[in-house]
Amino acid sequence: MIYGVGLGPGDPDLMSVKARRLIERAQYVAYFHKRGHTGHARSIVEGLLPDGCEEYAMEYPVTTEIPISDPMYNGSLAPFYDDCAMRLAARAARGDDVLILCEGDPFFYGSFMHLYERLKTHHEVQTIPAITGMSGAYTATGLPITWGDDIMTVLMGTLDQETLTAQATHSDALVIMKIGRNLAKVTAALKEAGKYDAAWIVEYATQPAQTVQKLADYGDTAPYFSIILVHGQGRRP
Amino acid sequence: MIYGVGLGPGDPDLMSVKARRLIERAQYVAYFHKRGHTGHARSIVEGLLPDGCEEYAMEYPVTTEIPISDPMYNGSLAPFYDDCAMRLAARAARGDDVLILCEGDPFFYGSFMHLYERLKTHHEVQTIPAITGMSGAYTATGLPITWGDDIMTVLMGTLDQETLTAQATHSDALVIMKIGRNLAKVTAALKEAGKYDAAWIVEYATQPAQTVQKLADYGDTAPYFSIILVHGQGRRP
Repeated sequence: MIYGVGLGPGDPDLMSVKARRLIERAQYVAYFHKRGHTGHARSIVEGLLPDGCEEYAMEYPVTTEIPISDPMYNGSLAPFYDDCAMRLAARAARGDDVLILCEGDPFFYGSFMHLYERLKTHHEVQTIPAITGMSGAYTATGLPITWGDDIMTVLMGTLDQETLTAQATHSDALVIMKIGRNLAKVTAALKEAGKYDAAWIVEYATQPAQTVQKLADYGDTAPYFSIILVHGQGRRP
Repeated sequence: MIYGVGLGPGDPDLMSVKARRLIERAQYVAYFHKRGHTGHARSIVEGLLPDGCEEYAMEYPVTTEIPISDPMYNGSLAPFYDDCAMRLAARAARGDDVLILCEGDPFFYGSFMHLYERLKTHHEVQTIPAITGMSGAYTATGLPITWGDDIMTVLMGTLDQETLTAQATHSDALVIMKIGRNLAKVTAALKEAGKYDAAWIVEYATQPAQTVQKLADYGDTAPYFSIILVHGQGRRP
């Protein structure tokens, strides 16, 4: 069996009982990482894998910092995902359980999906849902993200400013991910939508390096693992 | 200490390691329920509470089936939440840990927030995030909910049809909750937005009674615990 194991936002105690059980009995785990970095998924399971567990570190040929409009992006990633999927399928064919470790929730903007799409027609793949990074972030602010009938919209900072502004204007609660180099654009969109003063930014949610700040008090560079939030203000008896 | 303990969508193995640890050592647990029903949160921990654990069943004076526009709704719920919060605070003052059991993710459309707002100024309240019901639902469809830069919008079926249609039109991925008696209206909005054929409906996600169907194949009555989904179709190398 092949499993896509969601590990949650970062704190190992926030993975599910089901994920923890699979991790502690793992024979073979695979995870994505950037060159020179351990990879967030692998970091979360540090100290939990049993002795003798084999590891397959799938190193991205390009990073998320290449503009997605660049033909290099898909042209380089597609064969990479093909190759990873082939190796995982070969391993599963030998009868071992294969765990694909996924930071956050696998079916929510996860890289796992690219393997899943390639594997699912020929293999049984079970996906274990997990706590999202955004949930770790809004819980860290100590404020509920949505109340009553609030509309919540999830946006990527990579969208153009006009789209970000329009969406921010027509939603109550906002979650904006993939901040990094998009911080200035996201900030401008929130100002246009009249939501800048209400916005928060959480870096490294649930991880030891976590920070929680009002966006208005924040500097002008944000790490990749940061999430901007605007809380809904709906009905509350 | 007072804890708001998120329990996830229903499968007890999908609660976090942290939540499970708190539950298994609980001295005192409180949970909401409707008259004549056990309550979803209490059902999830069935068989996990230690001997001698005290239980406080907080019975809603009205249910979600009263229109929220009815002044009865807030007028009846506010004193109920006040009373529950007072009892929980009194119990915490005696030095016991108080666990408030929450189905789903406490800060995501949860009833827990109404207690949290009343307790947090005088007590330390720790909120444990959890897997959302919507994550249980989209994972059950076997299809990723969002890819690349997809925009995802979360809507309540209680919104008016015009709002539902406009939001559905301008989003890639949709999650619509609180279906129940709003099914016909939500269906009409999805048809207007051209998204009806792509919609799925999941009843009782991750629970033994779970069903997963295309909305077009579905009947005309839906339980409260059902979620309608439209998956994003974004970039995929």
